[in-house]
Amino acid sequence: MTFEYYDTLEIRDPEERERELFSRLPNQLKHAAEHSEYAKTVLSDVDMDSVDSREALAKLPILRKSDLLELQKNNPPFGGLAAITDHPVTHIFSSPGPIYEFVTSRSDFHRMARALYASGFRSNMLIHNTFSYHFTPAGAMLENGAKKLGCTVFPAGVGQTEQQIQAISHLKPQGYIGTPSFLKILFDQAQESGEDVSSMQVGLVSGEALPPSLREELEKHGIRLNQCYATADAGLIAYESEAREGMILDENIIVEIVRPGTGDTVAVGEVGEVVVTALNPDYPLIRFATGDMSAIMEGQSSCGRTNKRIRGWMGRADQTTKVRGMFVHPPQVAEVVKEIREITKARLVVSSRDHQDVMEFICESESITDDIANQVQSAVRVFCKLRADVKLVEPNTLPNDGIVIEDVRTYD
Amino acid sequence: MTFEYYDTLEIRDPEERERELFSRLPNQLKHAAEHSEYAKTVLSDVDMDSVDSREALAKLPILRKSDLLELQKNNPPFGGLAAITDHPVTHIFSSPGPIYEFVTSRSDFHRMARALYASGFRSNMLIHNTFSYHFTPAGAMLENGAKKLGCTVFPAGVGQTEQQIQAISHLKPQGYIGTPSFLKILFDQAQESGEDVSSMQVGLVSGEALPPSLREELEKHGIRLNQCYATADAGLIAYESEAREGMILDENIIVEIVRPGTGDTVAVGEVGEVVVTALNPDYPLIRFATGDMSAIMEGQSSCGRTNKRIRGWMGRADQTTKVRGMFVHPPQVAEVVKEIREITKARLVVSSRDHQDVMEFICESESITDDIANQVQSAVRVFCKLRADVKLVEPNTLPNDGIVIEDVRTYD
Repeated sequence: MTFEYYDTLEIRDPEERERELFSRLPNQLKHAAEHSEYAKTVLSDVDMDSVDSREALAKLPILRKSDLLELQKNNPPFGGLAAITDHPVTHIFSSPGPIYEFVTSRSDFHRMARALYASGFRSNMLIHNTFSYHFTPAGAMLENGAKKLGCTVFPAGVGQTEQQIQAISHLKPQGYIGTPSFLKILFDQAQESGEDVSSMQVGLVSGEALPPSLREELEKHGIRLNQCYATADAGLIAYESEAREGMILDENIIVEIVRPGTGDTVAVGEVGEVVVTALNPDYPLIRFATGDMSAIMEGQSSCGRTNKRIRGWMGRADQTTKVRGMFVHPPQVAEVVKEIREITKARLVVSSRDHQDVMEFICESESITDDIANQVQSAVRVFCKLRADVKLVEPNTLPNDGIVIEDVRTYD
Repeated sequence: MTFEYYDTLEIRDPEERERELFSRLPNQLKHAAEHSEYAKTVLSDVDMDSVDSREALAKLPILRKSDLLELQKNNPPFGGLAAITDHPVTHIFSSPGPIYEFVTSRSDFHRMARALYASGFRSNMLIHNTFSYHFTPAGAMLENGAKKLGCTVFPAGVGQTEQQIQAISHLKPQGYIGTPSFLKILFDQAQESGEDVSSMQVGLVSGEALPPSLREELEKHGIRLNQCYATADAGLIAYESEAREGMILDENIIVEIVRPGTGDTVAVGEVGEVVVTALNPDYPLIRFATGDMSAIMEGQSSCGRTNKRIRGWMGRADQTTKVRGMFVHPPQVAEVVKEIREITKARLVVSSRDHQDVMEFICESESITDDIANQVQSAVRVFCKLRADVKLVEPNTLPNDGIVIEDVRTYD
């Protein structure tokens, strides 16, 4: 098997990549501070020239996806986060919330061409794009990537399944873009009605999980499916290649994995929240916490791409829950861990007994003593405003799943 | 009132325009014959250099919208009508039929920027576009025009009325694009829910009629609405200006008004079918009969634009009906008129008496004699394969509405 790459950035020396990304970062921050009100405030006391390493970046504050709503309300429409200079805003989109996103005239604004290329999309192919072009940017994100590659697009959008099957059987597109579940609907209905939709050889799916069983079922129709992970704000974060060994990071973004509710980087392999710093000058997101969970994988992909890989989407990081009528947020759990030196990791388990909420605060601790347990109990009372049973365990006992608040209550 | 123009083409001397359009026509035909299979066939025996006048153009065959279906079936996807050279196809669309349309990378492919400009749209405005981007090209047609003008677009699409009102109240667009009836829904619902949608000052509506009463009602909300007339194949055909005295023809298209069912030009002021010859090199439509009825207006618009004007959409030209189980098409009526020298115009009226179809063939005739009536009756039998009562009337007696076959049967 020979591999083709979108550009040579994908196969450069990893150290060279790291150097290049972090040498660009100070200028990106200065540009952001000059042209966006949010960055101006956040970076006012920062020596931006010195933010040229992961360690320095990790000291900057986190911006949560959930903060966007409030920022945009106070400073419409983009919360002071846009840094528009020579590329005007061509489109505004709206995601549920509503949170407003934008696209500028910058070519392939969301950098999706790289993911399409790695999935086998090539110039002059006809693509059946089933992401919506209305309100949400998904349709346009992929559209712009396809344009960059020189593909032709049939903008199918969502729904109208019968007409979609008809269009596929007439126009014979080589590529599919959309969710895996909608592709299954198309294949199932086409099989029922006897229409030929076998022209589609490559597919890029996103927006939901692609379980191996579903991938296998869909690929029986002669299509080869890859996934990618992107957000409306940050654009492409990671993508699968033919190797299918996790998702390879995009070349124009800095990704950190942090403990949910904090800005603290976790160890390689540990599950945490995906935080991105985008090197897009128009939308200079700095340590943007996506709310999605993943983990960095060890080693490199066998396809020859040298960038780090993540394990794909592993759930939502926002584990906020309500216990006895009070909200409990991951940062409150993090406060308890920070308060007591011996504690390295914690997990709040919420269950119910006789229709009453019960909280158990499980901590990995370097030493297991009653004194520490008592300290933890007090800290939980202070930071979480709730009483919890405390259980101390040995380091590396808690599961590596990024979960800080686990809600196991059932309501049946 | 001072007027602003999209370009100086709009205010050039009408004779200069006519000269320029017809001096471009021979090259356009040669380009078409070289790069599109349809034109190659149709123009094989034509001396294209001599097609430099309305008279010469009027001798070329008509291509009906209804022919596209068959042409595309035999030669998918575009029926041999596309003439793609240096601008690749970026999108394929599908209109009911299905008939497939395309867009190339040519800037403002459908030339909608001119209509937007005449409606008051200007650079940097935010536009709320409620035409669909899925399947049909309407959304993209206006989108590309807005891009050409340097506007920002919110791609709202159809439906989701509540969310559309929310987006308008948050983002405060200056412009609306869509159907007049959907704008009425937005205004009515916003009034009910007390949301402020008063930001929209200019609107370009299309896709359906805009009765004066509806325009008046909508404009009470502070928006100024203009209409335009465009088709998915030919792009912009005509547009309203602030003067609102009919629709001014686009600068890159040759428009003829013909008697429905024929290729024969009608007199100025007479209602007939709109036939367009597009000077778009990528989609060189030659005498494309739109199926829409309109009429050329006398004189010029008071806004200073010097191009001819049409009266807007006046119904559908395809008046094919079924009488006593047999189809009757407008070209059959035209054959009768052509057959008998004294007859200048005819109208077949289909009614019913005692649940039986009755046909009356009314003719404008230079002399009214039984002999001519008998000739007409025979000709109707030959060309329409049906027996009809014949009625001869004086010239200029039949209504000027472009109707060749009038079906007044009721089925209740």
